[in-house]
Amino acid sequence: MSTGVWLVGARGSVATTSVLGALALRAGLAAPTGCVTEHPELRSAAVPQVGDLVFGGHDIVATPLLKKAEALGEAGVVPARLVAALGEELAAVEEHLRPVPVGGTQAEIAATVAADIAAFRDRTGVDRVVVVNVSTTESLPAPHPAHSDVDTLRAALAGGEDPLPYSSLSAYAAFTAGASYVDFTPSTGARLPALDALARDAGVPYAGHDGKTGETLVKSVLAPMFAQRNLAVRSWSGLNLLGGGDGANLAAPGPNAAKSASKQRVLAETLGYEPQGNTRIEYVDDLGDFKTAWDLVSFTGFLGVRMRMEFSWHGCDSALAAPLVLDLARLVGAAHRAGRVGPLPELAFFFKDPIGDVPHGLSEQWHLLREFVAGLGA
Amino acid sequence: MSTGVWLVGARGSVATTSVLGALALRAGLAAPTGCVTEHPELRSAAVPQVGDLVFGGHDIVATPLLKKAEALGEAGVVPARLVAALGEELAAVEEHLRPVPVGGTQAEIAATVAADIAAFRDRTGVDRVVVVNVSTTESLPAPHPAHSDVDTLRAALAGGEDPLPYSSLSAYAAFTAGASYVDFTPSTGARLPALDALARDAGVPYAGHDGKTGETLVKSVLAPMFAQRNLAVRSWSGLNLLGGGDGANLAAPGPNAAKSASKQRVLAETLGYEPQGNTRIEYVDDLGDFKTAWDLVSFTGFLGVRMRMEFSWHGCDSALAAPLVLDLARLVGAAHRAGRVGPLPELAFFFKDPIGDVPHGLSEQWHLLREFVAGLGA
Amino acid sequence: MSTGVWLVGARGSVATTSVLGALALRAGLAAPTGCVTEHPELRSAAVPQVGDLVFGGHDIVATPLLKKAEALGEAGVVPARLVAALGEELAAVEEHLRPVPVGGTQAEIAATVAADIAAFRDRTGVDRVVVVNVSTTESLPAPHPAHSDVDTLRAALAGGEDPLPYSSLSAYAAFTAGASYVDFTPSTGARLPALDALARDAGVPYAGHDGKTGETLVKSVLAPMFAQRNLAVRSWSGLNLLGGGDGANLAAPGPNAAKSASKQRVLAETLGYEPQGNTRIEYVDDLGDFKTAWDLVSFTGFLGVRMRMEFSWHGCDSALAAPLVLDLARLVGAAHRAGRVGPLPELAFFFKDPIGDVPHGLSEQWHLLREFVAGLGA
Amino acid sequence: MSTGVWLVGARGSVATTSVLGALALRAGLAAPTGCVTEHPELRSAAVPQVGDLVFGGHDIVATPLLKKAEALGEAGVVPARLVAALGEELAAVEEHLRPVPVGGTQAEIAATVAADIAAFRDRTGVDRVVVVNVSTTESLPAPHPAHSDVDTLRAALAGGEDPLPYSSLSAYAAFTAGASYVDFTPSTGARLPALDALARDAGVPYAGHDGKTGETLVKSVLAPMFAQRNLAVRSWSGLNLLGGGDGANLAAPGPNAAKSASKQRVLAETLGYEPQGNTRIEYVDDLGDFKTAWDLVSFTGFLGVRMRMEFSWHGCDSALAAPLVLDLARLVGAAHRAGRVGPLPELAFFFKDPIGDVPHGLSEQWHLLREFVAGLGA
Repeated sequence: MSTGVWLVGARGSVATTSVLGALALRAGLAAPTGCVTEHPELRSAAVPQVGDLVFGGHDIVATPLLKKAEALGEAGVVPARLVAALGEELAAVEEHLRPVPVGGTQAEIAATVAADIAAFRDRTGVDRVVVVNVSTTESLPAPHPAHSDVDTLRAALAGGEDPLPYSSLSAYAAFTAGASYVDFTPSTGARLPALDALARDAGVPYAGHDGKTGETLVKSVLAPMFAQRNLAVRSWSGLNLLGGGDGANLAAPGPNAAKSASKQRVLAETLGYEPQGNTRIEYVDDLGDFKTAWDLVSFTGFLGVRMRMEFSWHGCDSALAAPLVLDLARLVGAAHRAGRVGPLPELAFFFKDPIGDVPHGLSEQWHLLREFVAGLGA
Repeated sequence: MSTGVWLVGARGSVATTSVLGALALRAGLAAPTGCVTEHPELRSAAVPQVGDLVFGGHDIVATPLLKKAEALGEAGVVPARLVAALGEELAAVEEHLRPVPVGGTQAEIAATVAADIAAFRDRTGVDRVVVVNVSTTESLPAPHPAHSDVDTLRAALAGGEDPLPYSSLSAYAAFTAGASYVDFTPSTGARLPALDALARDAGVPYAGHDGKTGETLVKSVLAPMFAQRNLAVRSWSGLNLLGGGDGANLAAPGPNAAKSASKQRVLAETLGYEPQGNTRIEYVDDLGDFKTAWDLVSFTGFLGVRMRMEFSWHGCDSALAAPLVLDLARLVGAAHRAGRVGPLPELAFFFKDPIGDVPHGLSEQWHLLREFVAGLGA
Repeated sequence: MSTGVWLVGARGSVATTSVLGALALRAGLAAPTGCVTEHPELRSAAVPQVGDLVFGGHDIVATPLLKKAEALGEAGVVPARLVAALGEELAAVEEHLRPVPVGGTQAEIAATVAADIAAFRDRTGVDRVVVVNVSTTESLPAPHPAHSDVDTLRAALAGGEDPLPYSSLSAYAAFTAGASYVDFTPSTGARLPALDALARDAGVPYAGHDGKTGETLVKSVLAPMFAQRNLAVRSWSGLNLLGGGDGANLAAPGPNAAKSASKQRVLAETLGYEPQGNTRIEYVDDLGDFKTAWDLVSFTGFLGVRMRMEFSWHGCDSALAAPLVLDLARLVGAAHRAGRVGPLPELAFFFKDPIGDVPHGLSEQWHLLREFVAGLGA
Repeated sequence: MSTGVWLVGARGSVATTSVLGALALRAGLAAPTGCVTEHPELRSAAVPQVGDLVFGGHDIVATPLLKKAEALGEAGVVPARLVAALGEELAAVEEHLRPVPVGGTQAEIAATVAADIAAFRDRTGVDRVVVVNVSTTESLPAPHPAHSDVDTLRAALAGGEDPLPYSSLSAYAAFTAGASYVDFTPSTGARLPALDALARDAGVPYAGHDGKTGETLVKSVLAPMFAQRNLAVRSWSGLNLLGGGDGANLAAPGPNAAKSASKQRVLAETLGYEPQGNTRIEYVDDLGDFKTAWDLVSFTGFLGVRMRMEFSWHGCDSALAAPLVLDLARLVGAAHRAGRVGPLPELAFFFKDPIGDVPHGLSEQWHLLREFVAGLGA
């Protein structure tokens, strides 16, 4: 059941932590803490093991994987001793990394990417490939008629147009290469009717959007709690302070708006109404990968008495995301093998802004996930 | 479906807020915020309405209910305008309040209490009575052979012994009067094999223990979140600062130990292991009914990276407890009517330290509760 | 030593709380909690008593003072019992409130305001008048040559031009009426060379800017602490959540920028360098006058070890501001009486963005204030 | 101006971090972050440089200094690269470490310690020695007549009695060896009339008690802020969560009480009254040297409105203490050289529970310290 994982943004913090972690788990040098698929209720012979994963991918930067891993080691995101121990294994993954093609039309770029993915599959002999987008968050793209119809899309590409944001071009390339696709970011990715049609044509599944790593995870259990207790949430405001490359990007107005909307959605969905307040994202370079999120919830209880709750979450973003990337590669790989085609709403547990008409409370999502895994058989 | 609610500790903050709130809801002067039974998923014709509840009870203090309600109004626990508007209705409830019998053997006291409850039922014409213990928390009692066997208990009482803590004596009186029983406190209450047997003999249900109003409520959703994410909780420490009569009592070593144990139990049960740390309770008179709880959770994620979460909960204890008291009276009354006998583990949603081998995660408890209500029929 | 206090924005929350509080203190119905001038180290016979203050002012809205006070009472900003007890006294102040003149040139408006102030002084027989700006925060005005030279300013006004923002027009009117001026907001106010010259011509003192009521107050003691311990503050980020009229206004980009700059200034001034991070202001209508500010300070200690501090401040803005308004009226009135002319940097203790080259640490400002009061003689 | 530093508890976390840090500063491998004496306002030619310090000391455990430093490096308390770079220098300090003498009378133990100190002075050729107690906190000792009179003390020791707690025995040995003494812990140390007399006889200065490293430091600036604003602090409650050897010890009832009292003293001293609330210390092994303290301050403002502030402090205890140990060694050494004898209340800035009738606000203490350094001349 060997499964290829093609990482879009393969030299970033999340990708590097994912790869290093998978190598460490395979070598028995680390425990699978944070890996959801290792939960006793989810273990299944139908799901590839971490040791079955083979990594490749592409990136626009060229920093060697080992160098990036060493930087993460110095920043305390991963243990330096693991980087020291796994240099050879990292070098082996380095062999499967490719530059992002530049120049040319989107049609040409997509063809190159698809060829890279196919060559990776052939070279490594994996049974199938899951493409996972862990690159930086984009702004919302301008609407284009090619987004809603696959024939229009093909015609536009053939005509030399550039109708797709980069994340969607990756999904396009994945599907044409017969690979499944996971969008771990809030970018558009496969979230276009034309791409959905393409995935169904290609007979591959996809999942997304926007990995639920920290503050939104907490919201997805607290909001149902307030709802079930019939307490009236008046306002819910949050501030996310984060550094790192992702922080700098998310502080730009376009990606910021995309991310903030993704972060408040859980409230309206689980409470049934929209409380006042926003989620702000602020870039603080000094914090690096260690994000602090603070939320204030004001609510009224019996007879209108005012009360408050606040929480601070001090998490390491890459360390929270990486095991989920491995989980998603394993689960989407298993779904592909099981013949699932199109969106996988049962993976809502992993996402801030899940596909489909699914529950937004974490616990309901957990049940959905358990049933999904059980349904994969063996 | 008129249901009597006999409050043990009827002149305390929780009881007074419950009574005032029920009167306000009946009069259309307040919304049922905080009332779980009013949640759309739980509404059922088999459950008595708030307007069907008739209140009585006893207390060791003699402060008139109106005076207590006015004090709560001044402290901001209930709106002063409601107290002003409902003086007549409070006076009507006052008619059904009795002093706690003093002097005499436990057998004599129990007989008086049981007679008070029966007289309340006859006088008001209610179909049945639910006794709810909202009096102050006791220390753990010394073991006694009468606790484990109902015949030994009857013999001990007949012999003039005093084998029961006060909360258990209330449960004894309730059962002998044919009333059901709810323990909203961490005291022993019906949690003795002898009393369980008695309840079954009497054909009445009971529920408990220790209303889950604030910090533990939050723990019961956060702990499953950490578990499902396979994150390793290393320590979970908390401090509860509270004033009010309950605060003063809980700061005493005996009740403090009882309460703290009740508060940490959810962690071991939902995580599957016991993290380091304790929950401390501190009495700060000045805070009155407005409790602040602070918790620090330290955990490790992928590859052992250390992370932290902390939260502060600023809640009004009586305002959080009162709607649950109404919920429990309605649900246990409905269970009694439906012929349920003995413990009601399906009400675990409401308790810190629920009866029976039940899930401790809030969401699982919610499912149990929904099924329970659905099973009551109409 | 009777002193008139002319409030610009006389029907707002801060003004109404100030007036009600002064009346309550005079009537012996409240303690002077929050009044700095009542601190034992600052008591001086040279400073007018709260009972010596007589209130007037103007506003663009017409809500009666009593109505506003009742609304504040319902919101818990002031005790409702005080509003009930002081209705007559509030009505007496109402007699001295005037509408803001509308229409006409700035020269005409200023003349009307100055006449209103003079009439107030004559009518009440006070010795002198202090004008205090507690109206809503303005955006930064466009530069104008009239700002830097008093003759150019006079010429521009005489020529029918509108060169001044409203807060500065108030200061202009105050000075031409021979009144001193306090800017309690971050607006421009008297902070123009032309107005400074005018104040000196008129022989009156002035003070500002931007009352230091909550989060910045805390910063002004924590930042010197980090500096004196030689700890390196890496980032200091904050979020202010507030409702009320001021909140809505401050959330607008112009005033927001003015306020945020004012709030970070203390860091650079006391640390000697500018840490990363910003102070954000968010409007959350539901919070009303009860502001919550949260700050995260990340710093390095010995050998570069990373540490963090965070604080939450839950304050009632009007209740924090009002006693300072009374303090400033008393102190600036005393300075006027003592012959002080021009800016009063010794009042830096009260301001986020104080005038002059003054210390920004609270403790140094306290020493300055003590010496200032001592220097007023008696 | 070479100065010997004899550490009592020389193999503990604080001592090891102090020694390693001094070596790193001398080698130019680290900046003096956290070193108060390096503040521009305190630099003085009369104070020895860090490079002038020579370290020795004793401990009851025998773990090599290098091993301890490596453990601190792994725990993130000190940078591992510094430990790797300074192995040779640490080995040189190791030469000057001695075991704590065991067995024998207190007189004999004191003689051995004094001889060890004198031998260290002779061997290293330093001008003078400062003994610094950084060993674990003791319980309050039982009263003994020898505590209040130096002759009684000498007689008791000569008679084979054991009248002194260990910290005081260290001070006794220091003074008899002609060395000055600093108590960085809340233990008794030199805080006995008999020892004060002895220090004066010996012509040496001493300082203490209990280094002010984190939560109390914050209190010492916040409490004066509330006082100067004339806000009424109603309650101030805190929880300290810490691991490490010191944590385990402080959780024991005796040392806990000593420490807690030391921690609340600043409030009564700076506010002029004692608010409700306590400071609790809880041992959480997993937190290691990284302490989290949380404080809740409830206060009333103008017209009695209730407000709150809370803060969390996430500090590394050893990293906060170590630079202060170096500061105190340098300053007490300079005082000794300048002929100061007896207690040094001017060093109150450094202590939770300072000697003498001194201000407890940090800012006043800073002024005292500046004058002290200026008075040392050059």
